[in-house]
Amino acid sequence: MSVLVEFAMFPTDKGESVSSYVSRIIKMIDEEGIPYKLTPMGTVFEVENMEDALNILNKAYKQLEPDCNRVYSVVKFDIRKNKSNRLKQKIKSVEEKLGKEVQK
Amino acid sequence: MSVLVEFAMFPTDKGESVSSYVSRIIKMIDEEGIPYKLTPMGTVFEVENMEDALNILNKAYKQLEPDCNRVYSVVKFDIRKNKSNRLKQKIKSVEEKLGKEVQK
Amino acid sequence: MSVLVEFAMFPTDKGESVSSYVSRIIKMIDEEGIPYKLTPMGTVFEVENMEDALNILNKAYKQLEPDCNRVYSVVKFDIRKNKSNRLKQKIKSVEEKLGKEVQK
Amino acid sequence: MSVLVEFAMFPTDKGESVSSYVSRIIKMIDEEGIPYKLTPMGTVFEVENMEDALNILNKAYKQLEPDCNRVYSVVKFDIRKNKSNRLKQKIKSVEEKLGKEVQK
Repeated sequence: MSVLVEFAMFPTDKGESVSSYVSRIIKMIDEEGIPYKLTPMGTVFEVENMEDALNILNKAYKQLEPDCNRVYSVVKFDIRKNKSNRLKQKIKSVEEKLGKEVQK
Repeated sequence: MSVLVEFAMFPTDKGESVSSYVSRIIKMIDEEGIPYKLTPMGTVFEVENMEDALNILNKAYKQLEPDCNRVYSVVKFDIRKNKSNRLKQKIKSVEEKLGKEVQK
Repeated sequence: MSVLVEFAMFPTDKGESVSSYVSRIIKMIDEEGIPYKLTPMGTVFEVENMEDALNILNKAYKQLEPDCNRVYSVVKFDIRKNKSNRLKQKIKSVEEKLGKEVQK
Repeated sequence: MSVLVEFAMFPTDKGESVSSYVSRIIKMIDEEGIPYKLTPMGTVFEVENMEDALNILNKAYKQLEPDCNRVYSVVKFDIRKNKSNRLKQKIKSVEEKLGKEVQK
């Protein structure tokens, strides 16, 4: 099984700039050793089951909990059986269909 | 702490109509005994911590896992310390500001 | 055609409490005269085509633009041909499947 | 002003594999000549105002409308005044804070 997750998580009580808070979460994911991709609007990661995915989200919140009163998060899941390595495959599949490389 | 969660979860390999699948998830949430609200675009529920929220999402997926090959889900979290009963309070707060009842 | 839209939109440079900003948007939608539902996590409305839906989102942003430096928004669309009045129908369809009323 | 948009849009009446439909949308965006990034869970693009952003979303739907009965879409907006080129800047800012390159 492949569980692809895209999520954004940030405090809303810390003013306009929140990249120092977001960086804590990226640091945690980077240290987890799971395949991921940072995008300008969130982080995409891939794990093998729902429990692992939810565990990462819980750890992400733990990075902000100590000093943030209000945290907002948006998460998308794409869960598919009998698939793997979709972090690369999904983009490749689009490129094959278009017959050209895309910006990525 | 109040963790407000709004989520939609549905199979994408079952054709245009998916309400029978969605109903399984609502049934589970209704039986959990937590405060919730079904909306035309998802379900909002409120729990006291992130672990409980993620646990409900895991149970939701378990309702679809047996017979769905691909499941898509979108989840929003609004996590706020020192608050409770926001399932009602957030709407009430808007109505107070507007000085009138809204459609809900 | 039925375009169901669920959206949340709020400033992230105004501190922890944003209900006065959110209220401006609800006021606009209420005055538009379209069917809608305020939920604890956003607003659901239904219009007949994509252009009308996007127009409402643009008007929503215009309520915040004058005095907000940074605005975040999450929008879900469920667009379906040959359907109407889904603001009520989708919930009813779940209740029929469950054979009971749900919290709404 | 910088309007960053991340969106996923796909038919839900076409079975488990939808990359041929998604490819139509990427083709349109690629031909628009705006800066974008394809991710495994959606497409991020940056434009200078809300009208342009909504116009792209309308064009995206037009790619699917002819032969899709039901279309689902999730869109996130991050709208910020006095900023530009955030498609690259936001990731760079995280890397500076972490003092290392991340997977992107």
